[in-house]
Amino acid sequence: MTDSADEAIAAKALLPAGLRDLLPPAAQHEARIVEQLMADFGRHGYDRVKPPLIEFEEGLLAGPGAKLAHQTFRLMDPVSQRMMGLRADMTLQVARIAQTRLGKAPRPLRLSYAGQVLRVKGSQLRHERQFGQVGVELIGSLRAEADAEIVLLATEALTNLGAEGLTVDLTVPTLVPALFRSLGLDEATQRAAREALDHRDAAGLAAIGGAAAELLGRVMACCGNAPAAVEALAAVELPAEAEPERQRLATVVNLIVSAAPHVQITIDPVEQRGFEYQTGVSFTIFARGVRGEIGRGGRYRTLAGEPATGFTLFTDTVIESVPGPAPARRLLLPHGTPAAQAQRLREKGWDTVAALEPLDDDAAEAKRLGCSHLLRDGWTVEV
Amino acid sequence: MTDSADEAIAAKALLPAGLRDLLPPAAQHEARIVEQLMADFGRHGYDRVKPPLIEFEEGLLAGPGAKLAHQTFRLMDPVSQRMMGLRADMTLQVARIAQTRLGKAPRPLRLSYAGQVLRVKGSQLRHERQFGQVGVELIGSLRAEADAEIVLLATEALTNLGAEGLTVDLTVPTLVPALFRSLGLDEATQRAAREALDHRDAAGLAAIGGAAAELLGRVMACCGNAPAAVEALAAVELPAEAEPERQRLATVVNLIVSAAPHVQITIDPVEQRGFEYQTGVSFTIFARGVRGEIGRGGRYRTLAGEPATGFTLFTDTVIESVPGPAPARRLLLPHGTPAAQAQRLREKGWDTVAALEPLDDDAAEAKRLGCSHLLRDGWTVEV
Repeated sequence: MTDSADEAIAAKALLPAGLRDLLPPAAQHEARIVEQLMADFGRHGYDRVKPPLIEFEEGLLAGPGAKLAHQTFRLMDPVSQRMMGLRADMTLQVARIAQTRLGKAPRPLRLSYAGQVLRVKGSQLRHERQFGQVGVELIGSLRAEADAEIVLLATEALTNLGAEGLTVDLTVPTLVPALFRSLGLDEATQRAAREALDHRDAAGLAAIGGAAAELLGRVMACCGNAPAAVEALAAVELPAEAEPERQRLATVVNLIVSAAPHVQITIDPVEQRGFEYQTGVSFTIFARGVRGEIGRGGRYRTLAGEPATGFTLFTDTVIESVPGPAPARRLLLPHGTPAAQAQRLREKGWDTVAALEPLDDDAAEAKRLGCSHLLRDGWTVEV
Repeated sequence: MTDSADEAIAAKALLPAGLRDLLPPAAQHEARIVEQLMADFGRHGYDRVKPPLIEFEEGLLAGPGAKLAHQTFRLMDPVSQRMMGLRADMTLQVARIAQTRLGKAPRPLRLSYAGQVLRVKGSQLRHERQFGQVGVELIGSLRAEADAEIVLLATEALTNLGAEGLTVDLTVPTLVPALFRSLGLDEATQRAAREALDHRDAAGLAAIGGAAAELLGRVMACCGNAPAAVEALAAVELPAEAEPERQRLATVVNLIVSAAPHVQITIDPVEQRGFEYQTGVSFTIFARGVRGEIGRGGRYRTLAGEPATGFTLFTDTVIESVPGPAPARRLLLPHGTPAAQAQRLREKGWDTVAALEPLDDDAAEAKRLGCSHLLRDGWTVEV
């Protein structure tokens, strides 16, 4: 190797910040997790769709997509001379498919997806600029059963992967706006109240004064483990306009608890950040010991006005919440092992590594190549 | 739905030329094919790696990457202020990983990969600008066994998917250059000969005249099914410089035929187009009735000078060469089916679709939702 080749190789090793190579065994582990999640979604009747990595900017950034505009890489399309965007999120692409190509498919429509997204910059919680999303959308039903199905599917699929210590934080981001409306708060007061609620700032909330401060403070206090927090919320005297929101939350919690009593649910009825486009029960999933959320979802309306709900899991945080990959059972085959014999061993569950030339010391070679076993005189021998 | 929402939806339905949504069941079918190929590669000891979708331009387009420069989308990286490229091919990324992050991993190094690539424009054979690549690289061995392993792995994995009528076109793109050197042809004659060989133009080749025309004509005629064509090539009197190329081709064909006698092999010893960077036995895989290649591969040297070989399969053409997806066994569950019962049915192999509300006519609903069966009074009933 020449010096200039050395330099060229060193230069090639550098990747842009927030982008990385997944190596063995992490890459296979991630792929297995994604496909196992997708298989679970399929077993619940969710059909996979696969939108393209790039789309026209207008399509990608319309409506709720606008909030990702500053995070989206742009490309000029030499064919159409129009700007395209590299997707920063897949959920809106799936909603687009539901509205257009699958606009006439029977409802409720259950769709699943898995793929990579790219962001212009990393965030404080997620340095990566490329990461995977795996999720589902359930389109065309307003029922509480749909809200519950989504939460249950997410937690069941994660539990099947071996995730432990899962918590689902449920909220209804439309509850506070309903309270604001019925309380008749002016805009400045709403802003102050919103600010205080976002920071769970009881003193700031009290500073607003009057019946509004008291009511909002009581609602804010109803956070914590369900069902206790749900019961506390039920005891608060709410204006009629907020009643359906509270009722829906209680119904969904009941459906979840009766189907999966082991799932830990907390509620936080004033949580709204990150749910600006949600129109009903929404949630974030955390796992014990994992920094940041491993998924989020909730109810929304498509551009066509259809009721919908869904969730996205983030593969990078999902991986941190599940056990690592099992060590491979890998068998070194001596040079010239007949193809049929190698095939039989693979059918018995071995991963085989063929020696490409005669070996002096098969055990040393097996060890060097990371094989757990070798084939000697037709017998599998542990290394 | 308002008119303007209608218009917005219609606009969103349009995708840039050469980009498309995969819908059910195609998206799941593609994913299953990719993961089954990757599982087969894993069973032969190939470890998965996953490079990022974007890299710095210099890294992506160095060396052999230069030929894809005009096909690569460019992006400005706001973090480093440097230009990045959206990958148009994954093989060079994997070779980069082998040289850098896995530079000290034991050889031979077996790596596999699967992912999406993007091209600035579609080609005549492939209109799509986004397509999938699935492949392997075997790095660090010069042995004929390595060449054979790669061909056998590709054909075995495709056969396991149900592909029929596979043909492997083998070539040695270094054979003709070796002949040119030993014949001492000047550059103009080389160009004329290359042109005639590329078009299998016997008359054009004869026009060069002399011993060169005769020898090249005889070699060009040795194309067709192995082993007959290999035997014909063996009968041609070749200069010593070309002998290793011919010998390697014969050895590789023998290894393939003895391991997998059912694989149809043709040889075409003057084929060189698309193999400009290959340094030894190379191949293209076709399937009966499928337009365009479904994969290609061959021997090369990494930037670090290591001998390597590998192949890439193209998911879009692979899909055309294998049977379509099996119809789903999908079971409609009545509203309120207990979670544990639904779980048991899924464990028995059913995909379940939960009714989100009480049904008047369960059979009609099952049919409407595309379910093959429904659960009635605890029994699974065909619809």
